[in-house]
Amino acid sequence: MSGADPVVGMIGAGQLARMTCQAAPSLGISFRVLAGAADESAAQVCAQTRLGDYRSLGDLRDFAAGCDVVTFDHEHVPAAHLQALEQAGVPVRPGSAALRHAQDKQALRDRLARLGVACPRFAPVASLAEMTSFAEAAGWPVVLKAVTGGYDGRGVWICQTPGDAAGVLEAGLKLIAEEHVAFDRELAVLVARAPSGQAAVYPVVQTVQVDGICREVLAPAPGLAPARATEAQRLGIAIAAELGVTGLLAVELFETSGGLLVNELAMRPHNSGHWTIEGARTSQFEQHLRAVLDLPLGAPTLAAPGAVMVNVLGGADPDLRSRLAHVMAADPGVKVHLYGKTVRPGRKVGHVTALGDDLADLASRARRAASYLSTGTGQ
Amino acid sequence: MSGADPVVGMIGAGQLARMTCQAAPSLGISFRVLAGAADESAAQVCAQTRLGDYRSLGDLRDFAAGCDVVTFDHEHVPAAHLQALEQAGVPVRPGSAALRHAQDKQALRDRLARLGVACPRFAPVASLAEMTSFAEAAGWPVVLKAVTGGYDGRGVWICQTPGDAAGVLEAGLKLIAEEHVAFDRELAVLVARAPSGQAAVYPVVQTVQVDGICREVLAPAPGLAPARATEAQRLGIAIAAELGVTGLLAVELFETSGGLLVNELAMRPHNSGHWTIEGARTSQFEQHLRAVLDLPLGAPTLAAPGAVMVNVLGGADPDLRSRLAHVMAADPGVKVHLYGKTVRPGRKVGHVTALGDDLADLASRARRAASYLSTGTGQ
Repeated sequence: MSGADPVVGMIGAGQLARMTCQAAPSLGISFRVLAGAADESAAQVCAQTRLGDYRSLGDLRDFAAGCDVVTFDHEHVPAAHLQALEQAGVPVRPGSAALRHAQDKQALRDRLARLGVACPRFAPVASLAEMTSFAEAAGWPVVLKAVTGGYDGRGVWICQTPGDAAGVLEAGLKLIAEEHVAFDRELAVLVARAPSGQAAVYPVVQTVQVDGICREVLAPAPGLAPARATEAQRLGIAIAAELGVTGLLAVELFETSGGLLVNELAMRPHNSGHWTIEGARTSQFEQHLRAVLDLPLGAPTLAAPGAVMVNVLGGADPDLRSRLAHVMAADPGVKVHLYGKTVRPGRKVGHVTALGDDLADLASRARRAASYLSTGTGQ
Repeated sequence: MSGADPVVGMIGAGQLARMTCQAAPSLGISFRVLAGAADESAAQVCAQTRLGDYRSLGDLRDFAAGCDVVTFDHEHVPAAHLQALEQAGVPVRPGSAALRHAQDKQALRDRLARLGVACPRFAPVASLAEMTSFAEAAGWPVVLKAVTGGYDGRGVWICQTPGDAAGVLEAGLKLIAEEHVAFDRELAVLVARAPSGQAAVYPVVQTVQVDGICREVLAPAPGLAPARATEAQRLGIAIAAELGVTGLLAVELFETSGGLLVNELAMRPHNSGHWTIEGARTSQFEQHLRAVLDLPLGAPTLAAPGAVMVNVLGGADPDLRSRLAHVMAADPGVKVHLYGKTVRPGRKVGHVTALGDDLADLASRARRAASYLSTGTGQ
């Protein structure tokens, strides 16, 4: 190949960076990560790991100096640092103005409200009086969310009583209160958008969350009315365009009797899209690379009639590897993805995907494999 | 994950090692390559590249010292070195006794003949008299093959006349003469075999070779009689077992009016199996890793009704990258795999795969994409 290979730098070296690293060579993309330590998930497998602190502007500048484009494995880089990189001419994708809506839950709610996108009722709350006032209108329970810094259920508290809320408020975090939505189920839609404006949207999936952590994804969402699927896809594309997202945008939705409500956004490869590695013609990781480099997007179409992904959470016994061979023998068709992370109870350490025709059967296979990897017992 | 990740070391850092490197993280396999130079295809993307010379026993010993299993990207490691590693207790997969049949064409022919496997007529030839004698029985043209060292058409000469043969004989190489088979088409069957004896066989494919280089692979082989497909799969499994292969075995076959004849063997991931990355439930690269580690093998079943792979050969203009975006835009569903190699006319620098229902349509799409990447013109 002639013409220098483009260099994509991803800040953060978790499993999203690890799986992006696996996708990059096929398109001749030179991929590097900024890792906090050499044993992080992506740092183990990336040929161009750089060590540094994503909270240090100096480290970010050094990292960006070797990259054609900078993108993210997580949302935790300080916005002021991103703006400083942008002012220095670094192509940051998504840009700080878009990423703000994945970093700051109040900014997200305010913006979606202005756009007329249906969301749960919400209000910033700084005192028990404000909280009580919100609850009088929205009813209990109330969901309190840290405006910044939350992920995988952290920074979210479901408060049944004023006493619960008082306990959260004491910590002095900046919070918003949200209506606790009685949803029928959770859905997610994944959109890729390139700087040129080209967008591609994946089929809408159903997600199953437990304690704020994604446990299962069913693709496509079973029994979803075609009109509602189209509505969700249009909503995803519209939000990506309105916020000026470059790269991937995951929109987490509540499906309720009254329609769709937007729950959360993420602007990076997302747990709800891991099924695309085998289940879609273009994986979300390849798609993210295409999008941030402003290359034409790949087909987001299904590569199998259905796919079910189940996360592997750490169990009491940390020795995943001793159980891996049994899972492989029991179901030679299930796809295992391990993240190279130290096992701790409840931590996401991998995922499995089953592909085929019947979602109920696929869910049963994927759950069995994930459960056995986690705990040594089937489900 | 607890329990040390197993370390697989691959000798050679070409595109086969590069694509194996992409597969390894999902199974928590620590993967390293022995590369001759840091800019080789796999060395660019492998986090654990070691530099060394595969012809140096010292370099091989140093490399093997950090590996649980040693395997190969090519067949060129001297057999005596492999035996020395084995004597030192290194698990070499495939072992030297098996690999000999992929390194030495006369050993292969002799062994297959003893096993009663149908092959082209052959004879060792060291002089024009022996050559002429062989041709009197087998007829012209005659194929001369270097007993060792050939690949991708190198080391193979199709001789129309005694004069052609005299020119080849002059070089003093050890040669065998083979009957020039008037085949209907070429087929290939890919088998994985683990040290435990477990074997898995992929669907039989049709290959199209031009000047000894694989140009296209159609999976599954169109119009192949089911009984003949089964015969080819059984033959592959039997050869793997008889030769004691561990890892992958690719068997290249001639389909003739009289039945199947074995042409060549390779004991590693193979060009005829690149379609499995997206087209089979388990890619050949993951399967090779499972097999050499004696992990249970993955399902070799089709993940799409059909797949067509076309190699991208270097053209006159080395700037592949400038044409990549156009190919991606023209066909968002085609899968592109670039090898990170300097473009030289006729050199394999990548491949493309199209997946779907209709092999003729897929072949047309894959050819168009590969041709455009090579030359900037469609086909």
